Amino acid sequence: MSVETMDDLFLDTLKDIYYAEKQILKALPQMTKKAVTPKLKKSLENHRVETEGQIERLEQVFEIIGEKARGKKCPAMDGIIAEAKEHMSEIEDEVVRDAGIIAASQAVEHYEICRYGTLVSWAELLGHTKAVRLLQQNLKEEKNADALLSNLAESQVNQQAKMRDAA
Amino acid sequence: MSVETMDDLFLDTLKDIYYAEKQILKALPQMTKKAVTPKLKKSLENHRVETEGQIERLEQVFEIIGEKARGKKCPAMDGIIAEAKEHMSEIEDEVVRDAGIIAASQAVEHYEICRYGTLVSWAELLGHTKAVRLLQQNLKEEKNADALLSNLAESQVNQQAKMRDAA
Repeated sequence: MSVETMDDLFLDTLKDIYYAEKQILKALPQMTKKAVTPKLKKSLENHRVETEGQIERLEQVFEIIGEKARGKKCPAMDGIIAEAKEHMSEIEDEVVRDAGIIAASQAVEHYEICRYGTLVSWAELLGHTKAVRLLQQNLKEEKNADALLSNLAESQVNQQAKMRDAA
Repeated sequence: MSVETMDDLFLDTLKDIYYAEKQILKALPQMTKKAVTPKLKKSLENHRVETEGQIERLEQVFEIIGEKARGKKCPAMDGIIAEAKEHMSEIEDEVVRDAGIIAASQAVEHYEICRYGTLVSWAELLGHTKAVRLLQQNLKEEKNADALLSNLAESQVNQQAKMRDAA
């Protein structure tokens, strides 16, 4: 697809995040399985359910702009997930691994926060009012997921992981 | 390198962002050359100079923890830069391309914001007080660069790019 106009750029970026969300939906169960801290397991599982809802909202946005929902390979998200998998397999200690899983999940959230921020701004520009609301909802959920992970790291996981160093 | 402790995880993530910053330092001149909006050109050039300072700070952090400054391939940043280059080459209209360059630069900033956020939190945990200050400085600059780009997009570039659609 050639990108000529802001409508094209909007569609191209929508395909990028649609692919990214589908990839993270596939990766989340593996991350949940590897996590040992109960609150982290629960938070990842909740986010998997949330991601399903986000994918549905993206499908509604495709419909609003009269396009078929279709992903476009996103090397950025592929790279972020590849790094997450590498960390999950190379870290032996399970609590240190949880700290790594949180960091990897936050890289995912930040990529999504950034793309949704851009898409909200472009949807406003292009007058897709209904799409703005759907994308804002996804953006809000990603920001919330990121904040929950920061909180979990700082209130519990990091300290426990540091104590393992001395064990 | 095997990751066993939080010190290992900190070092591993430091190598990741060190590699990422060096890659973006290489990519920024191409992005600056492609950009046409004078404020965007200036902002990218300023960020190139800032990135040089950030790399120096990272080298100081390596020194503080008694390690040699060395990067580690970061597929996430490679992916983000690959997407940026793809957009730069596929968008014909130069103002729409500027909107794409801003979005790509913000994906870079968000990746860095996330990694620096994690590193600041881990440096505090591990008692690397001087490193905390250096990493916080980098984090502050990335957040500032991201905000400047949002402002430039919303105050000027997006609207101009939309007008090109009708041209």
